[in-house]
Amino acid sequence: MPVYRDPVGGLVLDEGALQAWTSKLLTALATPDDIAGDVAEILVASDRRGIASHGTARLPNYVALVEASVLDPSARPVISRGRPSLTLFDAQNGWGHHASRVAVDWAIGAARREGTATAVVAHSNHYGIAGWYALRAADAGLIGLSFTNSSPLVAPTRSRRSMIGTNPIAIAAPAGRWGRFCLDMATSTIPRGRVEVAARRGETLLEGWAIDVDGRPAITPSAALAGSLQPLGGDEAHGGYKGYGLGLAVDLLTGVLSGSTFGPNILGLFSTEGPSDLGQSFVVIDPTAIDEPGGFEHRLEGYLDQLVEAPTIAAAPGRVLIPGEPEAEAERKAAARGIVVDAEHHAALARLAERFALSLPAAQRLAPP
Amino acid sequence: MPVYRDPVGGLVLDEGALQAWTSKLLTALATPDDIAGDVAEILVASDRRGIASHGTARLPNYVALVEASVLDPSARPVISRGRPSLTLFDAQNGWGHHASRVAVDWAIGAARREGTATAVVAHSNHYGIAGWYALRAADAGLIGLSFTNSSPLVAPTRSRRSMIGTNPIAIAAPAGRWGRFCLDMATSTIPRGRVEVAARRGETLLEGWAIDVDGRPAITPSAALAGSLQPLGGDEAHGGYKGYGLGLAVDLLTGVLSGSTFGPNILGLFSTEGPSDLGQSFVVIDPTAIDEPGGFEHRLEGYLDQLVEAPTIAAAPGRVLIPGEPEAEAERKAAARGIVVDAEHHAALARLAERFALSLPAAQRLAPP
Repeated sequence: MPVYRDPVGGLVLDEGALQAWTSKLLTALATPDDIAGDVAEILVASDRRGIASHGTARLPNYVALVEASVLDPSARPVISRGRPSLTLFDAQNGWGHHASRVAVDWAIGAARREGTATAVVAHSNHYGIAGWYALRAADAGLIGLSFTNSSPLVAPTRSRRSMIGTNPIAIAAPAGRWGRFCLDMATSTIPRGRVEVAARRGETLLEGWAIDVDGRPAITPSAALAGSLQPLGGDEAHGGYKGYGLGLAVDLLTGVLSGSTFGPNILGLFSTEGPSDLGQSFVVIDPTAIDEPGGFEHRLEGYLDQLVEAPTIAAAPGRVLIPGEPEAEAERKAAARGIVVDAEHHAALARLAERFALSLPAAQRLAPP
Repeated sequence: MPVYRDPVGGLVLDEGALQAWTSKLLTALATPDDIAGDVAEILVASDRRGIASHGTARLPNYVALVEASVLDPSARPVISRGRPSLTLFDAQNGWGHHASRVAVDWAIGAARREGTATAVVAHSNHYGIAGWYALRAADAGLIGLSFTNSSPLVAPTRSRRSMIGTNPIAIAAPAGRWGRFCLDMATSTIPRGRVEVAARRGETLLEGWAIDVDGRPAITPSAALAGSLQPLGGDEAHGGYKGYGLGLAVDLLTGVLSGSTFGPNILGLFSTEGPSDLGQSFVVIDPTAIDEPGGFEHRLEGYLDQLVEAPTIAAAPGRVLIPGEPEAEAERKAAARGIVVDAEHHAALARLAERFALSLPAAQRLAPP
């Protein structure tokens, strides 16, 4: 996921205070305390990792879903059916973050027993950043994979219609002195948030990112927003059919496998016309089932040591990066100074604070760099 | 994987005769009959699916590995350790195709019992097309995923050095009247074979496919062959770091997890300097553990029905394709007329036939289109 730079005119909020406030807001929406705690933790984790598009900035959308009665804030996931290593949870249209946290925790426990386990979640809602659930497994010393389907924004190769979501793939693992390996990527070339940012800043787009409604490369953000994102790879000649195939594979493992909605049948992003009915899945692998404790982590650490020492191209802005490094750097900055939000994000939170009579924690102006 | 067009001056061989001949050749190399049968079946399956780069055209390379004593043709995979849903097989430097067939068959059986299962293979050799093993699971009514690491040919984003393999990802599932869904893709933009074909045909390359030794876009095949392939996505601005991350994730699940070699430490493609020491892994999921029999397949079929009806862009050579369709079409053609090989491929087989005194099945000239 893209880590955005500090916004001009940004404001800084204390992490803990923002999380506590978010939790209170969710409770005011009739979310039970423990569920509100999960959702708040995962939203603020996104902000902390520099992925502003998937964190508390989405609270107005979530509030709208609850108020339109298309997301049930008090619903709890129930185990529907399964075998020792594969379980289906029915989220019963509750918070996707909570159902997914419960599901990945089940998979972590089952993987310790069985070697590997997969939890599939049906009839769910948005779950925030895919990486959080993969990191949950990594923090338990295991390999975690996390997938979700999402609203149709991507045109399959050869098509000019948005038929599949940006369907992310995340994989995380403990990596010794490198901390946590965490690849967390949409299967489109860029996420929709990147186009929205370009629109606000008056920037043009690169060919390969998006197409207009007629299927031609979209160079302006407005053409892209009216059209479709391109799958990872871009056009057919550049391997875009692989990104299309990956997005479809994610849907197969989430929406299709769980018996939820999929592909073009999913409602638009944060539509209040009906339940989102998304699917998620989580695969957890315990390396100690087939190796001495620490063996996997030690080898991965050595591999990453080699990668960062690779000679670079002339245009490189720095050394080779490891998946998850920019997000880890954002976390370190947030721990040192708090969570940075842009003015629009802050105003949205302030409006919610006023409506729900929950005073927003005090914000500081971001010091100029 | 790319399905190549009929070569000019192509020759046609009977499928069954080619497979029987391949098996005899492998037996002449001291491969036990049952192992030779597996390897021959998987190599000819690649030819049948139109993926000439991974089939019997590689026999001279395999013969060289056995004759250099860096691949043990009689070695059998043994279960090293594991838990109910995760098992490590030690291929003991035997044929990768056979060890992987044994491993995926174990995972199929275990997934039926446990819901999902993963087989990891250590100290292995090349296993041909990733898709064959995923299709093995699909033919059993299950979802199959297949991964292998491979010789370093891809430069990580920002680097000008080949550090990781083209590390493929395959996923297959039964898809009702659509037959078998099968995504089988390298995590590089294009495979090395595509550059070799361009070199033979005097073609130039597209930007985003490869870089030269200095890290600049390689437009000529010779510059690309001396340089590196680019990960899926191309350069950093086009999301190439995602393809790099995916290739790395495949290595993490194969070479690193299995305790085999990984990344830049893997020998060059078909090098006879030492054992290949590759890793593979296979994930199998039984949808009936969480669903009525046929439910998953029925939903996937409906999804694919929707995709192929999406309106197309003006430049599209046809309708939206489903992953695996070109290969399935190649299989239908092969069933009708036999396996088409180009003159170079045929000559290589003829040389082996002479050396091992095993007369090659008669070939017909390919009728002009």
